[in-house]
Amino acid sequence: MSHSDVMCVTSDRLLRFSAECLHKLGLSEGDAELTARSLVWASLRGVDSHGLVLLKEYAERIRLGGIDPVSSASIVTETATTAVMDAGSGVGQVAASQAMKLAIEKAAQTGVGMVGVRNSSHFGAAAFYSMMAVEHQMIGFASTNAPPSMAPWGGKARLLGTNPFSVAIPAKTYPPIVLDMATSASAWGKVFIAMQQGKKIPLTWVLDKNGEPTDDPAIALDGGLIQPLGGYKGYGLSLMVDILTGVLTGGAFADHLPAWNDKAQPQQCGHLLAAVRIDAFIEYNDFCERIDELITTIKHSPLAANSDRIYVPGEIEYESEQQRRAHGIPVHAALKEDLITLAADLGVTSPF
Amino acid sequence: MSHSDVMCVTSDRLLRFSAECLHKLGLSEGDAELTARSLVWASLRGVDSHGLVLLKEYAERIRLGGIDPVSSASIVTETATTAVMDAGSGVGQVAASQAMKLAIEKAAQTGVGMVGVRNSSHFGAAAFYSMMAVEHQMIGFASTNAPPSMAPWGGKARLLGTNPFSVAIPAKTYPPIVLDMATSASAWGKVFIAMQQGKKIPLTWVLDKNGEPTDDPAIALDGGLIQPLGGYKGYGLSLMVDILTGVLTGGAFADHLPAWNDKAQPQQCGHLLAAVRIDAFIEYNDFCERIDELITTIKHSPLAANSDRIYVPGEIEYESEQQRRAHGIPVHAALKEDLITLAADLGVTSPF
Repeated sequence: MSHSDVMCVTSDRLLRFSAECLHKLGLSEGDAELTARSLVWASLRGVDSHGLVLLKEYAERIRLGGIDPVSSASIVTETATTAVMDAGSGVGQVAASQAMKLAIEKAAQTGVGMVGVRNSSHFGAAAFYSMMAVEHQMIGFASTNAPPSMAPWGGKARLLGTNPFSVAIPAKTYPPIVLDMATSASAWGKVFIAMQQGKKIPLTWVLDKNGEPTDDPAIALDGGLIQPLGGYKGYGLSLMVDILTGVLTGGAFADHLPAWNDKAQPQQCGHLLAAVRIDAFIEYNDFCERIDELITTIKHSPLAANSDRIYVPGEIEYESEQQRRAHGIPVHAALKEDLITLAADLGVTSPF
Repeated sequence: MSHSDVMCVTSDRLLRFSAECLHKLGLSEGDAELTARSLVWASLRGVDSHGLVLLKEYAERIRLGGIDPVSSASIVTETATTAVMDAGSGVGQVAASQAMKLAIEKAAQTGVGMVGVRNSSHFGAAAFYSMMAVEHQMIGFASTNAPPSMAPWGGKARLLGTNPFSVAIPAKTYPPIVLDMATSASAWGKVFIAMQQGKKIPLTWVLDKNGEPTDDPAIALDGGLIQPLGGYKGYGLSLMVDILTGVLTGGAFADHLPAWNDKAQPQQCGHLLAAVRIDAFIEYNDFCERIDELITTIKHSPLAANSDRIYVPGEIEYESEQQRRAHGIPVHAALKEDLITLAADLGVTSPF
């Protein structure tokens, strides 16, 4: 792809645009702002698969009835440390943010808070929620199940999703350590981005619909099966996320979740959000100093051959955020076209 | 290896033998029984790397002073949902069992219990603890850090351990789902077993001390680096386990843990044990029925080419346990020799 196919747009402009689109689609101003912030934040962090590319996706689902733009999550059961919420097929970001806030409140009171959500929708990047806990001197955990796209190890039926989870850990002088990973070898969003950009994908990411490895993202997206991370262990991780987010919440699990392309149906995603107060274990400042020492040890350790730097999880994303806040978010030709069409459809001023 | 190199011994006999050895080594009768149970249980479940092969290992550490056989864990800090215990360089099984019991008590009261342990030792198979919670209608979680044997992604210094974790989930008519996995591509114990059995290992498991892949377990064990599971994601998982078990507990982390072969020094392992009461989310029986449905769906789904069965995590181990309880635990020649020597050294009757 030539350089001219990419233009950079300030995150502020994309945030205003996205929030305006979402508001036109029926979300309240506050919910539209929150959801837009999740998407622009992912794009800022270089997690393009969970960024602005989803705006068109969400718009389609809202217009087809798969997402209810005005539904707000309600508490189904609650204890001092736990709760289950029903998102009523609302926007994932709205329900998950509410659930994480509740988990943080519970952790503030008791030490640990765990809140499950059922009947929700795609919630964007998991790290958006785990990092909310970090601001409260807590460790944050966020996970979700996802439309079935992976087979159990030894099988070939679409029964499990990419089922990602994130853990966020505060540091003292460094940015937080933020793990955010799919339990699959890759995320579908990355396959989608590769197709948009005309790139090939590694053969280890996807099997085509006949069960053969493919490096063509278009073939992969035509009924392919994503592979679990590192074989049977990734299968086990994906299954555990489905249990914690789908089975434990009383929501949909396994192939009860509709396929990704079935956009008129509620997605029925389940989430689990958790927060752990660090000073329930050791003194907060002591913890942060120990994390700093850990990061310094890792980053200053000897390099492997062909490596020029060691990163901790979340560091690449943090640097992308600094860079893109300063110089804008790169928008590729295909995304630009989608956003211009969306702007026209909704009667919103294009950001370009 | 010829069949004559393997003999089968009943688990009862091996349990009595192991408990007697551990008691002679200084453990109280109760602690010796508990620790022996952990080792024999792992052997029964076919997890030989965490079974009887460790008895000689623990004996050496106790005799060299690395493990204090009489130390019992004490609570350092405590809230309604959390605690930190100091194991005083005692036996890992003793401290971790105590911590899991405390986590279960806290979960019974509040919904969630999380107990960290510092200054502990190798604790055997993580599933031994996660499964304790299942008996109380809870989800169990257990993890530990381990002597540094893995490099951070992009590095070549020994800074992280294989840092395993286990999650155990109750079912209704099926045995529990039990994930128990190292965050490395393999466990050192499996490399050790391969060497004992004269087998090669996959090239993806270990780099030799010069950073080159090796399939020779002896070369691997001579200063090699274990590889993280699935590349950078396994590095992230291992790091998170080190943070939860080492940093959060106020214990040792990264290369503060002594090398595996440094047997005279306390191992300084940290553990995290957690229990979550299922009926704090949904009705327990409903949960178990949903898990049964999930297992049935997975197990009856179409097979991939070259696959003759789909397993859920813990199922292979469960079937091994049934089989070995009935027919005995296979003891290979090298292990037999080690146990005979140990019996002679301690003045305990050999189990053969």
